[in-house]
Amino acid sequence: MRKTIVDFLKSGKDKFVSGEEIAKKLGVSRAAVWKHIQELRKTGYKISSSEHNGYQLQEVPDLLMPAEIQTELKTEIIGKNISYHITTDSTNRIAKELAGDGAADGTVVISEEQTGGKGRLGRSFFSPKYKSILMSIILKPKFLPHDAPKCTLMTAVAVANAMIRFNLKPAIKWPNDLLFNGRKIVGILTEISAEMSRINYIVIGIGINVNIDREEFPDDLQDIAASLSEMKGETVSRIDFLKALLEEFDKIYIEACHNGFDNILNQWRKYNITLGKKIRVLPAGGDEEFAAVAEDIDSEGALIVRTEKGREKVYAGDVSIRG
Amino acid sequence: MRKTIVDFLKSGKDKFVSGEEIAKKLGVSRAAVWKHIQELRKTGYKISSSEHNGYQLQEVPDLLMPAEIQTELKTEIIGKNISYHITTDSTNRIAKELAGDGAADGTVVISEEQTGGKGRLGRSFFSPKYKSILMSIILKPKFLPHDAPKCTLMTAVAVANAMIRFNLKPAIKWPNDLLFNGRKIVGILTEISAEMSRINYIVIGIGINVNIDREEFPDDLQDIAASLSEMKGETVSRIDFLKALLEEFDKIYIEACHNGFDNILNQWRKYNITLGKKIRVLPAGGDEEFAAVAEDIDSEGALIVRTEKGREKVYAGDVSIRG
Repeated sequence: MRKTIVDFLKSGKDKFVSGEEIAKKLGVSRAAVWKHIQELRKTGYKISSSEHNGYQLQEVPDLLMPAEIQTELKTEIIGKNISYHITTDSTNRIAKELAGDGAADGTVVISEEQTGGKGRLGRSFFSPKYKSILMSIILKPKFLPHDAPKCTLMTAVAVANAMIRFNLKPAIKWPNDLLFNGRKIVGILTEISAEMSRINYIVIGIGINVNIDREEFPDDLQDIAASLSEMKGETVSRIDFLKALLEEFDKIYIEACHNGFDNILNQWRKYNITLGKKIRVLPAGGDEEFAAVAEDIDSEGALIVRTEKGREKVYAGDVSIRG
Repeated sequence: MRKTIVDFLKSGKDKFVSGEEIAKKLGVSRAAVWKHIQELRKTGYKISSSEHNGYQLQEVPDLLMPAEIQTELKTEIIGKNISYHITTDSTNRIAKELAGDGAADGTVVISEEQTGGKGRLGRSFFSPKYKSILMSIILKPKFLPHDAPKCTLMTAVAVANAMIRFNLKPAIKWPNDLLFNGRKIVGILTEISAEMSRINYIVIGIGINVNIDREEFPDDLQDIAASLSEMKGETVSRIDFLKALLEEFDKIYIEACHNGFDNILNQWRKYNITLGKKIRVLPAGGDEEFAAVAEDIDSEGALIVRTEKGREKVYAGDVSIRG
């Protein structure tokens, strides 16, 4: 209902739209319209009103509200359902709950703030209110659990494609870190629930530093974190970037479901800054760190490295680039 | 407390044990001992009592109660914690809840009856009360999600090893069906919750037809289901078989955690009846059925088959053996 009112006010461009007209259009009373306008104002919309002329939309808040996100959103699957929160402990936690309760493929959970946001391996994630994009995407694909690990590379490519629409040059470090000057802009945490022969759901948590100045980061993050605004040299609209990302994600996900991941892995190779480099590998699972040269990723998304002992596959872990 | 009382009664062999002795040993009142004896009787223990001589254990019920299972159970990890239910919709559901709430590696959920038991791909599972073993094992291994699919083959091998202790000859059809005369005795449903670089938990649901006569099965199952008692030609103690299985599972799981799956896959090959046979493959994920010859399993547990077009890997799906 509120989304319809906002659409209606927007359609009036800078002109006033009469309360009666809105009421008629929606089949509700003028008092009901008034109440919705009050609610919209509370969430940050600036709407002026005049007894004779009606309502005029003056400013849309840079909040990631479904009404804004879904306006002219060009997707087929992703973002048709959005669960929006001002604050939550973790969008992945909510998404897993929704997914278990039957939420549709492509449902998105968004929060303006996370009090318990987690990066990979339980690491905490810095996310000041209204300055990041914090969301989780629920996927219920038909492909096999065996293919699920590639979704994390797919997500990095979707973010990279969104960055390109903002004239930003993506740099992906294996498996899914997006970097600017060696510092991290985006965190991706993929969780899966599966039987051996089918995926129940995949939840992809994406945290993007959007409008955070370098000195705003805690001291211990200033040398390892960056933001889109720092990269762009100006404020970036969170709404616009999020919409671009949902659209790019939608495209690439549909591609994966229909044609598999080959083309996506090629896109990943194009954006990557890992292959051909000397790296240090800290494998997940507790094995010891070692030096290697990153050679390629295989069809599973695993990193193929060459060490003194020969070629090796790294399925999961952290790498640091040494040159 | 009740387990201790049962142990105490058992230690008296066929003799009476005085209520006062038990009370002293446990540091509780004789009235409290009396109450526990009453509760044990309700769950099927036959305990005679005499005012002067105390209590005597006459019969232990064939219920899969923790007190019975854990008596002299030789395991290091599996079954140290048991959640026991007379009836439940699904032990896998309970296990997933417990696992998410921090249950320890090796925790076991047992139910005497399942009202909503599910086989793979949501198929229903026939399980008359007190005649099957219905349980779920929670694993929290340190190995990578990439290794998780092999747990389903590992489970089939653990069941096979338990069968051998009962002089039964195991026959495994890929990936994890245990058959007798082509009919299925055991259903295994593995579910996983994971991040890309670590396993949150694996829940392995195991349903075993123990003491079910062929004519007890519903008509549509009589040609595809069998039970241990049919195979053995006599009633099989559910308690004994379950304990054997937990011990075999414990051994093989510790082996997997320390040395990987190579030896386990070799055991699987030894018990399998699929390799070298003409089969029909119905791949998971909706691809079309096809004819092939089963050649081997690879190091991931995938089935390698040869078709007219060449070699192919089947990661998940159903096979039927044609000779």
